[in-house]
Amino acid sequence: MLAGKKGSEVGKITSHDVARAAGVSRATVSIVLSGSDAAVISAETRERVRKAAQELGYQPNSAARMLKNGATRTIGLLISGSNLLKVDAFIPVLFGAVCDVMRARGYHVLIETRPEGTGANPYRDLVQSQRIDGLLILNGPSHDPYLIELIESGFPAVLLGNVRHPKSHSVHIRGRPALMAAVDRLVAAGHRHFGVVTLSPLGLEAADRRVQAVADALAAHGLTLGPQAIQSGNFSAESGQAAMRRLLAEAPETTAVFAGNDTVALGVLGACGEAGRIVPRDISVIGFDDLPFAAHLWPPLTTIQVDASRQGTEAAKMLLQLLDGETPAVPQIALTAEPVWRGSDGPAP
Amino acid sequence: MLAGKKGSEVGKITSHDVARAAGVSRATVSIVLSGSDAAVISAETRERVRKAAQELGYQPNSAARMLKNGATRTIGLLISGSNLLKVDAFIPVLFGAVCDVMRARGYHVLIETRPEGTGANPYRDLVQSQRIDGLLILNGPSHDPYLIELIESGFPAVLLGNVRHPKSHSVHIRGRPALMAAVDRLVAAGHRHFGVVTLSPLGLEAADRRVQAVADALAAHGLTLGPQAIQSGNFSAESGQAAMRRLLAEAPETTAVFAGNDTVALGVLGACGEAGRIVPRDISVIGFDDLPFAAHLWPPLTTIQVDASRQGTEAAKMLLQLLDGETPAVPQIALTAEPVWRGSDGPAP
Repeated sequence: MLAGKKGSEVGKITSHDVARAAGVSRATVSIVLSGSDAAVISAETRERVRKAAQELGYQPNSAARMLKNGATRTIGLLISGSNLLKVDAFIPVLFGAVCDVMRARGYHVLIETRPEGTGANPYRDLVQSQRIDGLLILNGPSHDPYLIELIESGFPAVLLGNVRHPKSHSVHIRGRPALMAAVDRLVAAGHRHFGVVTLSPLGLEAADRRVQAVADALAAHGLTLGPQAIQSGNFSAESGQAAMRRLLAEAPETTAVFAGNDTVALGVLGACGEAGRIVPRDISVIGFDDLPFAAHLWPPLTTIQVDASRQGTEAAKMLLQLLDGETPAVPQIALTAEPVWRGSDGPAP
Repeated sequence: MLAGKKGSEVGKITSHDVARAAGVSRATVSIVLSGSDAAVISAETRERVRKAAQELGYQPNSAARMLKNGATRTIGLLISGSNLLKVDAFIPVLFGAVCDVMRARGYHVLIETRPEGTGANPYRDLVQSQRIDGLLILNGPSHDPYLIELIESGFPAVLLGNVRHPKSHSVHIRGRPALMAAVDRLVAAGHRHFGVVTLSPLGLEAADRRVQAVADALAAHGLTLGPQAIQSGNFSAESGQAAMRRLLAEAPETTAVFAGNDTVALGVLGACGEAGRIVPRDISVIGFDDLPFAAHLWPPLTTIQVDASRQGTEAAKMLLQLLDGETPAVPQIALTAEPVWRGSDGPAP
């Protein structure tokens, strides 16, 4: 009768069937297949149970398992600003890396997008519903009281970004040295009039810090970044083009522009093109992220290289440590960035 | 004592607390909050229970709820080829739309990436573990026996793409008429030598059908698409650049190129640039998808416009219908595409 059951008969095979086929108790099946305390079972028995489970196509019911040991083997990835997902190619790179690490450890990934400015607490629902064991948070606004509350609750969570909270676990990109080095090189190439198309004011510390890094590096050369030379985009090419149009209108003397990210840089290049400004002959454009497409544009994009894949991998690994009850050696990891000089920069005209 | 409990004390509030605060039985709390059979409870009581639950910050335990009614309020989104996620900006657009629809109906989205060519059954695990109520499948290979098995099992699933199975539910893009119209216009503009940088042979019917559409339209004008004029990329800009380098080397007479998608087109433009071929003066480049960045490049990309957002929305809505036990009026939806003529095409040189 057992042989008549097929693996494709969803949910019909129980641990009882496996126990009978392997000639052991249901408790033994449960211990072996959950991996908990498996050392008390002989290797021979473990093998027999696994083989029986495999042959029968048995899958433990995750809901029952979750109730029993409180673990869902699922982590959440919360993205603040669901529009971001549609326009910025950085997120999928990072996200692919998170999925790779989690899949290798048998974890599932639940995605939650949080529309901008809803004011609701996006964490409580997820945490209290007990759907997830831990959480990765992308672009959590720095001054969000709900985020602070989550961090202080001790729920396993790792931020992709940095909110400068002493108890937080995070992996963020430290772009400042790379941006300052890039400014130095452009100043040495004769540039005096700089512009920045920054990411929009979402309360993102990272965006503000990048503008500050450029301003500080310029100040060291006795140069300034006027207000009309700082234009806000969001994360899209469209916003980059619109911001660059304003920048060219309000600060036409600009010869070097830092874009908030590589996607924004596409639109900055678009605005330069339509204004008849040849890149890099008339104007130098520097992106941020080094997305997979950046090296393959024409001209190949000079940018600040960030290892998005590594950011995702490190954050996923830190979360796994927290889930295993371990204390990460470095709870707030700062990854460095490097300028990559390609074809979209040159000497000042 | 109850007043002392805060919503931030994760998981501490039980239905017992809510029942006491509202002065009703736990069964009543369960019925009201699950929404099942709520008609047997008076409106006044329902309101009192909801208010108490809200004030206490009570969240039903999803694992317990799942065991009870067998519904997880979670759908899976399976992506075949996890590398795709990292390079193709189409997926996040589609995915953002799916998340928006699902969030509005109170569903969570579990992402599963399936590395290429593992040979394992990616569906059984997900379906049998009872983590999900339904599944959206992106880029499922046409001849995958596991996919066919899933479709025939009747598990609620909607394909993003088309595998031509009579029982499947799907939303796919019909690009053929738009591609043929684009060929007609380019032939009228004097082009005689066409090239295609296609998506790589993953067994994707869509990719093969697009090449066939271009070849058929050319045949109607007495023109052919030689083997050296068809080069394979995958979904990345890097692959587009490499394929276009080969195309320019093997078929240098080419004056009009169709790229497999807009991301691939970025690399095609890169290869044209490095070869000194000015777009559109020397060569016309046509993308596919009309991603958010396409209109903002320089030159603005001429492409075949596909509504990725709508594809995601329609598929999500169809899956919700299946979950509600309804029969979709059109089980296999074909969305049309339209050429959008911008700046990357022109008359033949």
